[in-house]
Amino acid sequence: MTNKLPRVVIIGAGFGGLWAARALSGAPVEVILIDQHNYHLFQPLLYQVATAGLAPEDIVYPVRTILRRQANVKFKMAEVTEADLALRRLITTAGIIDYDYLIVATGGVTNFFGMESVAKHGFGLKNIDDVLAVRNHILRLFELAAQEEDPAVRRALLTFIVVGGGPTGVESAGALAELVYLVMPKDYPDLDYDEARIILMEASNRLLAGLPVELGVVTAETLARKRVEVRFGNPVADFDGETVTLKDGETIQAHTLIWAAGIRAARLADKLGVKQAGMGRLVVKPTLQLPKHPEVMVIGDAAYLESESEPLPMVAPVATQQARTAADNIRRLIGGQAPQEFVYKNPGVLATIGRNAAVAHIGKWQFKGFIAWVLWLVIHIVRLIGFRNRITVLINWAWDYFFYERAVRVIMLRPAKKLNKES
Amino acid sequence: MTNKLPRVVIIGAGFGGLWAARALSGAPVEVILIDQHNYHLFQPLLYQVATAGLAPEDIVYPVRTILRRQANVKFKMAEVTEADLALRRLITTAGIIDYDYLIVATGGVTNFFGMESVAKHGFGLKNIDDVLAVRNHILRLFELAAQEEDPAVRRALLTFIVVGGGPTGVESAGALAELVYLVMPKDYPDLDYDEARIILMEASNRLLAGLPVELGVVTAETLARKRVEVRFGNPVADFDGETVTLKDGETIQAHTLIWAAGIRAARLADKLGVKQAGMGRLVVKPTLQLPKHPEVMVIGDAAYLESESEPLPMVAPVATQQARTAADNIRRLIGGQAPQEFVYKNPGVLATIGRNAAVAHIGKWQFKGFIAWVLWLVIHIVRLIGFRNRITVLINWAWDYFFYERAVRVIMLRPAKKLNKES
Repeated sequence: MTNKLPRVVIIGAGFGGLWAARALSGAPVEVILIDQHNYHLFQPLLYQVATAGLAPEDIVYPVRTILRRQANVKFKMAEVTEADLALRRLITTAGIIDYDYLIVATGGVTNFFGMESVAKHGFGLKNIDDVLAVRNHILRLFELAAQEEDPAVRRALLTFIVVGGGPTGVESAGALAELVYLVMPKDYPDLDYDEARIILMEASNRLLAGLPVELGVVTAETLARKRVEVRFGNPVADFDGETVTLKDGETIQAHTLIWAAGIRAARLADKLGVKQAGMGRLVVKPTLQLPKHPEVMVIGDAAYLESESEPLPMVAPVATQQARTAADNIRRLIGGQAPQEFVYKNPGVLATIGRNAAVAHIGKWQFKGFIAWVLWLVIHIVRLIGFRNRITVLINWAWDYFFYERAVRVIMLRPAKKLNKES
Repeated sequence: MTNKLPRVVIIGAGFGGLWAARALSGAPVEVILIDQHNYHLFQPLLYQVATAGLAPEDIVYPVRTILRRQANVKFKMAEVTEADLALRRLITTAGIIDYDYLIVATGGVTNFFGMESVAKHGFGLKNIDDVLAVRNHILRLFELAAQEEDPAVRRALLTFIVVGGGPTGVESAGALAELVYLVMPKDYPDLDYDEARIILMEASNRLLAGLPVELGVVTAETLARKRVEVRFGNPVADFDGETVTLKDGETIQAHTLIWAAGIRAARLADKLGVKQAGMGRLVVKPTLQLPKHPEVMVIGDAAYLESESEPLPMVAPVATQQARTAADNIRRLIGGQAPQEFVYKNPGVLATIGRNAAVAHIGKWQFKGFIAWVLWLVIHIVRLIGFRNRITVLINWAWDYFFYERAVRVIMLRPAKKLNKES
């Protein structure tokens, strides 16, 4: 590879990988971006697919289309099965790919903390498969409840547990409450909605731990008004599909458990033979380089870096900002300059709780209620990729807001991989 | 069931079943509508999901929402496994359902004419699972072709066979040609599109046999301009996933075969112990009643009835018109009057061939080209159920038309049924 441009391989087309590829536009490199899917997924709106507010196609965009006009990047849809950092070589389902520089942006997966039964019977919210399974499940439970004569069984069918009091759990619980109490009664008018329960469980003693305490309190109050029960301090210990068991032994009859209580680094991180820290994340230097492999950078959910003695959170702005620093550092390394340390600029935290209600903490300002909600809508629309997607999402949101309608309340179990065809 | 209202059970929420339920609005009956899915599917646009122009959620609508304001109808999501016409009883996955009157509107399924290998390796276009499998398959082939070094293999990967020269086959071939030649080159600019082939195979000697000969000729010419090869008179005999074998022994290397060459009645028709005719359809009297069971009516694709010595075609207008007659006849039977015979009013045939091009035969008039195409667009938008769906479909079509973009070019293999959860 001496007389050719240096090759930068990026694993993952999420916020980290995609932003890194774009930040290398015009750089004197050949970029290969690899992802197991052919689309970029806008994860912040996954919970809306789970609660039948959006279709999966509304929050994804083909990677090739996004990168179409960038001359120095190629996309390969492939899964990386092994990485040999000594040889600078990746083994993938599309063959062997060698690199001069590597950016690991493999993201995160749901962390069930080793609780296998919860992993088997519960639902994550981290990818399209997860959220379609949730949507199908919830809609099917309503059909079953509509035909169920035994009130105890009905109550269990209509009891939904969301685990995790961070933004994802809060947003999911709020959206679920609106689906169950505002939308479903129009199609299932004969059900007794006093039999339904939505419970948000948080192991600590406050919601939205990354925000000021008062916003967490406002959030809990708003959820209560939307008929979500919020429970603190009693972690989930087990779930078998019909019964949730808490740490102190209490049980709740519920057929749905949505796990929004932890993310860990995607599994490739375990295979690199490199030091990992909390949540399986790969420890990097402040320049985002692996300590023993200066040509390898790790960004986003897969990376462990501390800022002011606290590990950086596993959120999108960290990934996109690290992506730009990693890309810039690769340009510096190629030019013979020293790489720079990453400095995180926290753009604030936004969490929506449902119609007309959200909380936001940006710099020194706190927002809540309607104005925070509008802010949330605008920011998410702007950050969504794809003009057609923005329009479709806006229409779906308008429909829901004005008509209390979520038109994607359809149950579709889509085909599994067919082994006899190219899959 | 003597002092209660008579119960009408309708199996199927397609064009036939749904229109029958609506036509019984206000009638002195209790209606139960059963379907294995919780949504009504707008089948005429299925091929657009197959060619990545629309998302599945754009062409379905929850049945409960459609029937929300009709007081005398209930919906049950269930599959009918057995029907006992003597006892007037259905065995379903949601329990036993007795009826006073029954409308069988179970529709049609792809007919592979007993060719098991074709059924296994080929694709139908009759439901959401089918068309998502087609979409995923086509997109994945492009990814494989982009990485394939052997030109012979590439050509096989990029050769697509559509079987059937009726409206479905013509529309699919036209849409596929636009996807392959107008849209995909923007994301796969390095492929040589001279290596791609789209072949529409029709066993007879003309396309669109239900239309005047000259429109069939215009259609073939338009398809040729869109780079679709049209071949007559050499039926497909076998397909193993990589090679298509024709009746005369000729073989074509192709990895995709889309079967639009036949529909037969859905399998429940085989289980009723009643006389069946061509395509497994149940023979009915002109009043749509089963000859030996006057309280049972069959409509739509599942029914066999001749008009002017020709079997009625298996198309949507037949189903919706028969639905109204069947509903009306049930009202008459309840009121002690004689049922009326069904008279089909052919509203004409429309088939689109792609952008700016369609053919139409309505009454004595023939249309072709741009004006027929606009007619096709308008009629399909109007007939689509759901205002949100109409807007979303319009946006997708506008995007495709003006920008040659189909934003749903994403590959998603959705989860199969999970047996440990309610499925």
